Amino acid sequence: MKVAIAQNNYHVGNFESNTNKIVLQIKRAKEQGAQLIVFSELAVCGYPPLDLLEQQGFIEKAEKAINDILLHTTGITAIVGAPGINNSEEGKKLYNSAYVIANGEIRKVIHKSLLPTYDIFDEYRYFEPSEDNEVVEIEGTKVAITICEDLWDEQPIDQPFAQSRLYKHAPMRKLMAHSPEIIINIAASPFSHNQEYKRRDILRRNASTYNLPLIYVNQVGANTNIIFDGNSKVVNSRGEIVTQLKRFEEDFQFVETSVINQMKITDFNLDDTNIRQIHNALVLGISDYFTKTGFKKALLGLSGGIDSAVVAALACRALGAENVHGLLMPSEFSSDHSVNDAELLAQRLGMTYDIVPIKDIYTSTNNALAPVFPENTFDITEENIQARIRGMLLMAYSNKYGNMLLNTSNKSEAAVGYSTLYGDSNGGLSSIGDLYKKQVYALAEFINSEKEFIPYNTINKEPSAELRPDQQDSDSLPPYYVLDSILFEYIERKQSPKEVISMGFKRSDVEKIVRLVNISEHKRYQFPPILRVSSKSFGEGRRFPIVAKYDF
Amino acid sequence: MKVAIAQNNYHVGNFESNTNKIVLQIKRAKEQGAQLIVFSELAVCGYPPLDLLEQQGFIEKAEKAINDILLHTTGITAIVGAPGINNSEEGKKLYNSAYVIANGEIRKVIHKSLLPTYDIFDEYRYFEPSEDNEVVEIEGTKVAITICEDLWDEQPIDQPFAQSRLYKHAPMRKLMAHSPEIIINIAASPFSHNQEYKRRDILRRNASTYNLPLIYVNQVGANTNIIFDGNSKVVNSRGEIVTQLKRFEEDFQFVETSVINQMKITDFNLDDTNIRQIHNALVLGISDYFTKTGFKKALLGLSGGIDSAVVAALACRALGAENVHGLLMPSEFSSDHSVNDAELLAQRLGMTYDIVPIKDIYTSTNNALAPVFPENTFDITEENIQARIRGMLLMAYSNKYGNMLLNTSNKSEAAVGYSTLYGDSNGGLSSIGDLYKKQVYALAEFINSEKEFIPYNTINKEPSAELRPDQQDSDSLPPYYVLDSILFEYIERKQSPKEVISMGFKRSDVEKIVRLVNISEHKRYQFPPILRVSSKSFGEGRRFPIVAKYDF
Repeated sequence: MKVAIAQNNYHVGNFESNTNKIVLQIKRAKEQGAQLIVFSELAVCGYPPLDLLEQQGFIEKAEKAINDILLHTTGITAIVGAPGINNSEEGKKLYNSAYVIANGEIRKVIHKSLLPTYDIFDEYRYFEPSEDNEVVEIEGTKVAITICEDLWDEQPIDQPFAQSRLYKHAPMRKLMAHSPEIIINIAASPFSHNQEYKRRDILRRNASTYNLPLIYVNQVGANTNIIFDGNSKVVNSRGEIVTQLKRFEEDFQFVETSVINQMKITDFNLDDTNIRQIHNALVLGISDYFTKTGFKKALLGLSGGIDSAVVAALACRALGAENVHGLLMPSEFSSDHSVNDAELLAQRLGMTYDIVPIKDIYTSTNNALAPVFPENTFDITEENIQARIRGMLLMAYSNKYGNMLLNTSNKSEAAVGYSTLYGDSNGGLSSIGDLYKKQVYALAEFINSEKEFIPYNTINKEPSAELRPDQQDSDSLPPYYVLDSILFEYIERKQSPKEVISMGFKRSDVEKIVRLVNISEHKRYQFPPILRVSSKSFGEGRRFPIVAKYDF
Repeated sequence: MKVAIAQNNYHVGNFESNTNKIVLQIKRAKEQGAQLIVFSELAVCGYPPLDLLEQQGFIEKAEKAINDILLHTTGITAIVGAPGINNSEEGKKLYNSAYVIANGEIRKVIHKSLLPTYDIFDEYRYFEPSEDNEVVEIEGTKVAITICEDLWDEQPIDQPFAQSRLYKHAPMRKLMAHSPEIIINIAASPFSHNQEYKRRDILRRNASTYNLPLIYVNQVGANTNIIFDGNSKVVNSRGEIVTQLKRFEEDFQFVETSVINQMKITDFNLDDTNIRQIHNALVLGISDYFTKTGFKKALLGLSGGIDSAVVAALACRALGAENVHGLLMPSEFSSDHSVNDAELLAQRLGMTYDIVPIKDIYTSTNNALAPVFPENTFDITEENIQARIRGMLLMAYSNKYGNMLLNTSNKSEAAVGYSTLYGDSNGGLSSIGDLYKKQVYALAEFINSEKEFIPYNTINKEPSAELRPDQQDSDSLPPYYVLDSILFEYIERKQSPKEVISMGFKRSDVEKIVRLVNISEHKRYQFPPILRVSSKSFGEGRRFPIVAKYDF
């Protein structure tokens, strides 16, 4: 059987555009003699649709999309992800389904059994898990159709307090009773920088365990903060990868199922370095955020520091330098080199910029508050005023010209609350908010590996917020390589402070940092959406209470 | 059997304080000859603990709390809500459990079967549902112990696209096979202004359907944005309410189970008016937010308008007027009466205030931006600058003196995006963000029913943001009574725009408002936590994508 694999970038709720893509590819597949074409999970509505799934009108549009697509399936079978209706009176109203359609008819609707409800996933919020598992015969081949998590009955774990078997059954084990000849998995599996390892492992293990070839079709593209990397693939029944589709791009390929086991095994090394993957993911994330919300132009504050330099470079790649504008907003505490470094960066990237000094606004603010404030007290208040004036100026520019503001905070800062709420925490999207400071440095090096876009001085000077004379970030925190490691153990690996200390970190450092993370929930609650590139990003994937005693 | 009902206010993660409360009440119950004492759902850790449940240290503390409580159960049985461990290798790591402890031992651990995973609830994120249901014999009485949702197998629905039976089985139906003599339900059931009707209906229906008396023990108090109203009760086997504990307060009562069916039926009318309930809930919500985060003093901007007046009055009730400070920040567009009305309000409430005019900061901001902006364009940019200067001044005051800023936006504004991000959307807590404008008026009337705290003029003038000359809110939107009704149908009742129009609203109004709601997700994403008083509050109970085509 000749199968077309359609790896598409879908836009949540844009049924017209999603349906058009699907229909065009069905035509193309037919023209080239395919008997089956496979689209990804929830393809017609895009993933993740969130509470749009609770709107009757949304579901009706999804049903209509399937009915529109149907009309184009004469002489071909298509597997299309879409919400399915639970017609029983019991259970959630919907299923997460794979529609098997052919010759103008819905031949079968297969429902997802294992519903990921952890981290960023909330599938049990919307869907009833399926308890039936049946094989579908397509062109004489018995196909085990599974939906993403259905193959993840056994999960890799890297945390002390987690289960490898989150579910009580394995759909593939049940399906094996019906003697399938091939596994098809339609997915919406998001990128994180170690996800591809886990995913390969899962797919290879399933193929070899059940001794069946496997076709895996993933979504590509970003919706808000979630980035899908594509990377659809074909695995032979020995668990070897024989075909892999593009990463971070739409792709379309054919595979002849009868020869999968004879195909050349391609040694798909993970040739991408970790940081190149992150770079490409972020560029896609920024680009799709703008394209899908209808924005064209971006704006950001350029401080001369490394965070804003990296965001500027990413934005220029994603949107074109002609669509990126910088504001340099020096204060009395800014060093000369800050302005020079920022100007040099903008010139090298080819983006426009303006200089708007904040001194007079800062003075008039202090004057206005003088009758209310005690005399001669310079503290965090005045530091924050500077950050908030900058935030206000950026938003004013954004309002006047329609540029969307990009946030420039990194994950280390967001973790310990070293950002000013309504100041440098502002923005429509955070592009490096899931990167620890050391990863920001690595990304800067990567960006510069082609050409020195980011000035030498920006990378090599001591980080400073420049909100008071001679301030340096390391004044109040351990150096970044220590800070980042402690944060990683506590946040990603969910190690207790006790365990982190036992790894050899200083007790006082660990206790201070953990305390800062815990008391900063209120700041992160109001943070912009953060492009997710790790397995535990701040935002909806990490839900901690603001009001709580963090009792360690 | 004499049963003590302990309706407590728990603090999430504060094991010490929660355990102390529980131990003290066990002693009190013993002293008064009770054989059984019942605490609410997840009592030892507080509800909702969110992702703290994924921290091993947190679970160890919960286990330790149970072991500490154990030691005080000589001669008495206690039912205490706490996380239970799933020792099987399959399924989620935890259960949501009721520990039955007596004489220093854990006699039985009952696990919750139905896990609410909708609106603000994410229980399947953490817990494995129980499939076993067994009756526990306590002092010779067979008790059906159920946990909150376990009795909600049949749900009231008021939306077009919902199921009344969200689950495939009813724990009580299974428990009936073991001939229980009484139902006990431990709960963490949050307040919303129509929840008590639904809850009574559910409890009465369960008691009468199974012909069993029912003891219902709820949590009271607020954790972040979720308010629990208590209102624990005893229902006889005919479904009549015979005892009801206090609302919005801790309470402790005894009931003799053998006489429940002979007790006087108290006609517990819902004597509270809807608006009095909301008032009391919000006062509790503000008070607990401050107490549990360790803040004492509040701050808010006083505009002379009704929203800030109502928040000021609520804050004074919750925290004492001596702990509430107002900033009046008139601009060149502010009318005289705004300042006068705000001053009058502060004086009547007995709170302190300062006046900090924003004119000079506004001028210096415009001057700083003049080289960058086109000449003579006053638009939304300049309106927002004023709101953001005020936001900055409030945060500066908050930083300097440690007062937590209260947000003053209402639900109608938050819905249509009529607030300035990083301006009047600022705050640590939104206290009236779940109240439509018409409810804010009703609350003002209620507050004034005792004494005219809120000036006549504040209530009776036309609402205006006063960000440009002669601005009125109704300039760009239909009047509030229309706006609010459309919003209610779209947000709470999830009616499609088509259906809202068919109810008789103007098509152009409905389409404009629905569009505004949908394009404002990015603003609400960065909004402070909102005290929840409706069945569909903005925040984690309503999760819509920012990047999506809302295709109506």
